[in-house]
Amino acid sequence: MNTAAKAPDKVALVIGAGDSTGGAIARRFAAGGYIACATRRDAAKLEPLVESIRAAGGRAHGFSSDARKEEEVTALVERIESEFGPIEVLVFNIGANVPSSILEESARKYFKIWEMACFSGFLNAREVAKRMVGRERGTIIFTGATASLRGSANFAAFAGAKAALRALAQSMARELGPRNIHVAHVVVDGAIDTEFIRTNFPQRYALKDKQGILSPEHIAENYWYLHQQPRDAWTFELDLRPYMETW
Amino acid sequence: MNTAAKAPDKVALVIGAGDSTGGAIARRFAAGGYIACATRRDAAKLEPLVESIRAAGGRAHGFSSDARKEEEVTALVERIESEFGPIEVLVFNIGANVPSSILEESARKYFKIWEMACFSGFLNAREVAKRMVGRERGTIIFTGATASLRGSANFAAFAGAKAALRALAQSMARELGPRNIHVAHVVVDGAIDTEFIRTNFPQRYALKDKQGILSPEHIAENYWYLHQQPRDAWTFELDLRPYMETW
Amino acid sequence: MNTAAKAPDKVALVIGAGDSTGGAIARRFAAGGYIACATRRDAAKLEPLVESIRAAGGRAHGFSSDARKEEEVTALVERIESEFGPIEVLVFNIGANVPSSILEESARKYFKIWEMACFSGFLNAREVAKRMVGRERGTIIFTGATASLRGSANFAAFAGAKAALRALAQSMARELGPRNIHVAHVVVDGAIDTEFIRTNFPQRYALKDKQGILSPEHIAENYWYLHQQPRDAWTFELDLRPYMETW
Amino acid sequence: MNTAAKAPDKVALVIGAGDSTGGAIARRFAAGGYIACATRRDAAKLEPLVESIRAAGGRAHGFSSDARKEEEVTALVERIESEFGPIEVLVFNIGANVPSSILEESARKYFKIWEMACFSGFLNAREVAKRMVGRERGTIIFTGATASLRGSANFAAFAGAKAALRALAQSMARELGPRNIHVAHVVVDGAIDTEFIRTNFPQRYALKDKQGILSPEHIAENYWYLHQQPRDAWTFELDLRPYMETW
Repeated sequence: MNTAAKAPDKVALVIGAGDSTGGAIARRFAAGGYIACATRRDAAKLEPLVESIRAAGGRAHGFSSDARKEEEVTALVERIESEFGPIEVLVFNIGANVPSSILEESARKYFKIWEMACFSGFLNAREVAKRMVGRERGTIIFTGATASLRGSANFAAFAGAKAALRALAQSMARELGPRNIHVAHVVVDGAIDTEFIRTNFPQRYALKDKQGILSPEHIAENYWYLHQQPRDAWTFELDLRPYMETW
Repeated sequence: MNTAAKAPDKVALVIGAGDSTGGAIARRFAAGGYIACATRRDAAKLEPLVESIRAAGGRAHGFSSDARKEEEVTALVERIESEFGPIEVLVFNIGANVPSSILEESARKYFKIWEMACFSGFLNAREVAKRMVGRERGTIIFTGATASLRGSANFAAFAGAKAALRALAQSMARELGPRNIHVAHVVVDGAIDTEFIRTNFPQRYALKDKQGILSPEHIAENYWYLHQQPRDAWTFELDLRPYMETW
Repeated sequence: MNTAAKAPDKVALVIGAGDSTGGAIARRFAAGGYIACATRRDAAKLEPLVESIRAAGGRAHGFSSDARKEEEVTALVERIESEFGPIEVLVFNIGANVPSSILEESARKYFKIWEMACFSGFLNAREVAKRMVGRERGTIIFTGATASLRGSANFAAFAGAKAALRALAQSMARELGPRNIHVAHVVVDGAIDTEFIRTNFPQRYALKDKQGILSPEHIAENYWYLHQQPRDAWTFELDLRPYMETW
Repeated sequence: MNTAAKAPDKVALVIGAGDSTGGAIARRFAAGGYIACATRRDAAKLEPLVESIRAAGGRAHGFSSDARKEEEVTALVERIESEFGPIEVLVFNIGANVPSSILEESARKYFKIWEMACFSGFLNAREVAKRMVGRERGTIIFTGATASLRGSANFAAFAGAKAALRALAQSMARELGPRNIHVAHVVVDGAIDTEFIRTNFPQRYALKDKQGILSPEHIAENYWYLHQQPRDAWTFELDLRPYMETW
């Protein structure tokens, strides 16, 4: 564990805590004793998550935060650090994939996908890193995807944003590793058990019965594990995919 | 050659034709019979290039174009196609690297580097690709850098923009290749013989005497070569570096 | 955990259990309830390992096995399966790096490095995989290195062997994943706390005081973790390096 | 061009000059003024190639050489250098792909594929490099494949050999580049117009009519081009695939 074991109030901040992966990550860190701070654009949607964590005996808070707005990000980090404690863990988990032929991709959508999936990551990670370097400890984990490594047809916007996010993670890992900040990137390569997949890809979703889609809880366990790694053996990147996935 | 040999007026459009690589590429295509259309934010700076091409018997035109502005890009492509002929070749050559510690990187600079080095590439390539698919031919080449493949410390912004540009190129190559559009990405891995290197890195520049920095003309030759490749054997990516470079 | 929890006698076979990483992996699986079967060319050197595992309450056996000899490998797997139980986990951990200028590399050494670091991996992994597919479960983990991903000057032989081993791991993961065999590759990128480093690179070894070299126990923990991953979220590859490593 | 233009007798040695790519490369260098020396295990099969080069006014010689045998390789290089002139260009072009399930792969076949596709490359490249460093010039090009970059199911042996060959090429490029030896690796990603494809994959072969398979002559042109690159802008790696290829 790369944090002081006795720190009374340690925060794990999850940017983009939807109903699936981000929520599961918040739960996992709460179960591990962290104050889970979760953000979405609309905090009202975080209430079920916060309540379920509390019902399980954990601590959690939800925040409305537009992760693309520098002033909101700065204020969020300031508020959490002053009200709840040092942010020991930051997880950036916002994705935004709407495939298009390059011929029909709008400038607005291309920009928005980058803004959500990459620029937000920069803003949040930089702001938290500034605090972590002062304490000389901390963990920052970015959620990647198949598109982080490969620009497929019709994925120019998403692949661009994810590749840029991975480059950010690499650059931060190289700069901040020696300052005792563990920066990691998780490549999720496969469909996740979400409402979106259930509704839009029912055949794919049916693979759930034989563990053919990723469980958010199992993904979350890897984030927890990365955070536990002793600093002589840190992982920058790991991939996660169902055993039956074609890749 | 993947263009019709008899096309009377074929345009090669170079976005970001500075004094170095972009200018050399414009010269090379002009020497090969193309109407070289070169852009910069301020076309006045293109006059020496345009004049030198004309003095050598070639055809060239300079355009002021802010490559980040969709309406300017659309108007530029429209104007060139109607005034000069079909754009057979598009070269996107805008870079923008100002290294910073992630701790000191401003949101504004992080955004601007992406906007110049990646978003501009998207706008111009999409707009030209729309024309090329109608003709079922064309070549689009993006200039990459070491940072396209690696996020080094202090290069988060530039590496992010270049990785995203490479993902764009990959995605376009996969979508448009089967439609007879050749999309390629050139990784320039080393210092180029420019005024910037001469002034700021004189020791590095001194390697010019033993060919230790890249000549813009030699880089340009590779763009010409890529455009000449027959379509049964297209290159998506090649790297270029001086023989003595450490990598 | 991807093995039947009640299996009375489950074997973890570690090929190349030296004094460092391989030994630590054997210890870790023994601590987890597995019968640790460890091999070296000379089993006598395994006695301290076997005794220490037994002293800690674990089960362990040492075997002399030349991992490059097909008949020895076949006999080893046959004997372990019939005497001790099904091999649920195979770890291939043999390396062999003796850098040379390509101009001075001998054919004999180039071959031997491949034979030890790659061919042995093929023989052992194939032989164990044949058993695992019948049971439709199992984990196979290969130890990689920096050279698995990069051919540096003077590392032609080692980088070739490690790149080939990684290709083997990838190919096996793609073929055997759908048959419920988890194949993974661990990229160890940094100096490990070994007698070799202590003796030959004392300055490097001195970094141990600030966790600047990898602990074998911490490496081993990742092998155990990979084996525990549920099959809907398997990792093929993760890297491990000290926080202060340059990469 | 990185060779002295006036050198009276310059040799291009092609190891593995079959009826397709290797033969086309020999032809291309002969057309460029080189003495094409081509090898196969059985030189008799090279006669049509040698005769056709001579009929076209070029110079060519065929040699029986088992590229896996160190003494044959040494003797070959010695003989060519003393009888014909300095080897300015070496092309290693031996492949050997026979897919198998890992469960059925024989040790003998796994070894033989590596021996042919990788070990031979090491032997020939090392032997020629020894001569080139003395002259401080030369070009060495290795033929790669899709499998050089990816270990697909059932391709463990071939992918291993090709990945190892690529690592060899990288290592040699990094060591020998500063000594003015240009080492490059060409990734051929697609079916080539060969008798083998014609016979075994007729549907694929039918794509030839729309340039959907690679022409050996067009591949060869890239080897020639790589050899012509000035040393301030050398390519280590380029890929080649038909415009309509899925990748």
